[in-house]
Amino acid sequence: MHAAANPSAPYRHRLRVYWEDTDAGGVVFYANYLKFFERARTEWLRERGVGQQQMKDDTGHMFVVAESRVRYARPARLDDSLEISVELRSCGRASMLIAQQAWRGSELLAEGEIRIGCVDALTFRPQRFPNPILQALT
Amino acid sequence: MHAAANPSAPYRHRLRVYWEDTDAGGVVFYANYLKFFERARTEWLRERGVGQQQMKDDTGHMFVVAESRVRYARPARLDDSLEISVELRSCGRASMLIAQQAWRGSELLAEGEIRIGCVDALTFRPQRFPNPILQALT
Amino acid sequence: MHAAANPSAPYRHRLRVYWEDTDAGGVVFYANYLKFFERARTEWLRERGVGQQQMKDDTGHMFVVAESRVRYARPARLDDSLEISVELRSCGRASMLIAQQAWRGSELLAEGEIRIGCVDALTFRPQRFPNPILQALT
Amino acid sequence: MHAAANPSAPYRHRLRVYWEDTDAGGVVFYANYLKFFERARTEWLRERGVGQQQMKDDTGHMFVVAESRVRYARPARLDDSLEISVELRSCGRASMLIAQQAWRGSELLAEGEIRIGCVDALTFRPQRFPNPILQALT
Repeated sequence: MHAAANPSAPYRHRLRVYWEDTDAGGVVFYANYLKFFERARTEWLRERGVGQQQMKDDTGHMFVVAESRVRYARPARLDDSLEISVELRSCGRASMLIAQQAWRGSELLAEGEIRIGCVDALTFRPQRFPNPILQALT
Repeated sequence: MHAAANPSAPYRHRLRVYWEDTDAGGVVFYANYLKFFERARTEWLRERGVGQQQMKDDTGHMFVVAESRVRYARPARLDDSLEISVELRSCGRASMLIAQQAWRGSELLAEGEIRIGCVDALTFRPQRFPNPILQALT
Repeated sequence: MHAAANPSAPYRHRLRVYWEDTDAGGVVFYANYLKFFERARTEWLRERGVGQQQMKDDTGHMFVVAESRVRYARPARLDDSLEISVELRSCGRASMLIAQQAWRGSELLAEGEIRIGCVDALTFRPQRFPNPILQALT
Repeated sequence: MHAAANPSAPYRHRLRVYWEDTDAGGVVFYANYLKFFERARTEWLRERGVGQQQMKDDTGHMFVVAESRVRYARPARLDDSLEISVELRSCGRASMLIAQQAWRGSELLAEGEIRIGCVDALTFRPQRFPNPILQALT
């Protein structure tokens, strides 16, 4: 609610583990935490008024992931209810760093950092973040 | 709410379209409607007290999809909010047929039928549905 | 080889089952057969000189799946080597029907039919197949 | 060829980008490079005589990813043919570090490091790598 007062406080997005997320090891496939992290970032952006389809339509720009890092501590399983956190660590004109974690209750399952840049959607050339985006996030 | 009185009324599960669901055509990748359908079936089962991990642990049985059919009417796009319906059409001792639809507001995007069977989780031999499952669903 | 002489003979594409394809049931996730089918169709098209990115760039049109149907007979597992067949059943001006099967050696694991249409890549309005495509396939 | 003489030389696995790998940005979805990396590691292991399903059946152990890091340089697109490299950087009794890259011809698209551990497949407790595995890889 008071996002403007404390825009970098950890945001939390809840999701459920379905069959599609698991692999034959009986647990969530390791690449899928990047999907979970992205869902949470998308909802975090939406809560701040940033719709990514809208941003692309309006400005011709889109976010891209420049770097991802994930450490896996404990496996998530089918039917688990997880909370995915989003915390903006730093935000410059052309790059932001976001820390994310996956929790099952009080157990930390995975954590990572995602570096986000901005590109022209047609040429993929690097761009500065549009000003309204910067204002919404910082 | 009155699930016991009318267990086969269409159940609806809401979900959001994320980047992971789309393809380079700019729309949801056609195979992913089967993921959406399964998420909705899983929540429909959960509402009726059926947890699939629990069922596997307790009985050694699990559901399998025996047949899937999907007709695609209109494409879903990034950021769309969809409702996925679940309706039990028929349920025998070893096979059930479920009709499902994907809606964006009042627009029907896709519809299909999924035939579900039951197998031993170790041998994959066909089994009858466990009695508590049948009672919960019919 | 003699594609021109017998364009609808079953084409076969070989692929391997990886962790990403499996689920916690220990077998290939049911939606992923649609991915396998599409990979095989893409290679079948490529062998006939049809590149889909090229087609989109040249004509502004792209293929879409209008209907999919899959029957699942036996589960595929991690490390399995599969062959996916592609057989053109019928091809009109605006719709084609393709029969596909997934084999592990002499065991049929899954089979289905995929109905393909053609749309304008920007508007998603139905289009006839471009003439060079029709000539390459029929 | 001379794998025994130089077991840590970069191994290369070729793969094709299909619709399933792309997203609405028109390029490969960022999480899918982890799938590409894993396919290449699996084939690299297979070339050294290590089958993961076989290892699980024989020893009850399986590999797990403990940490993943990817830097994304240029986007891959539909129909691209990529080469994914695998290079063993270090290998202890319970942890190995693998460097991987994704190439399109002479263009480096993405690179990363994957830390692999070993667990009991039932309890997920950390284990040392089975001796035959260590001998095959080092």
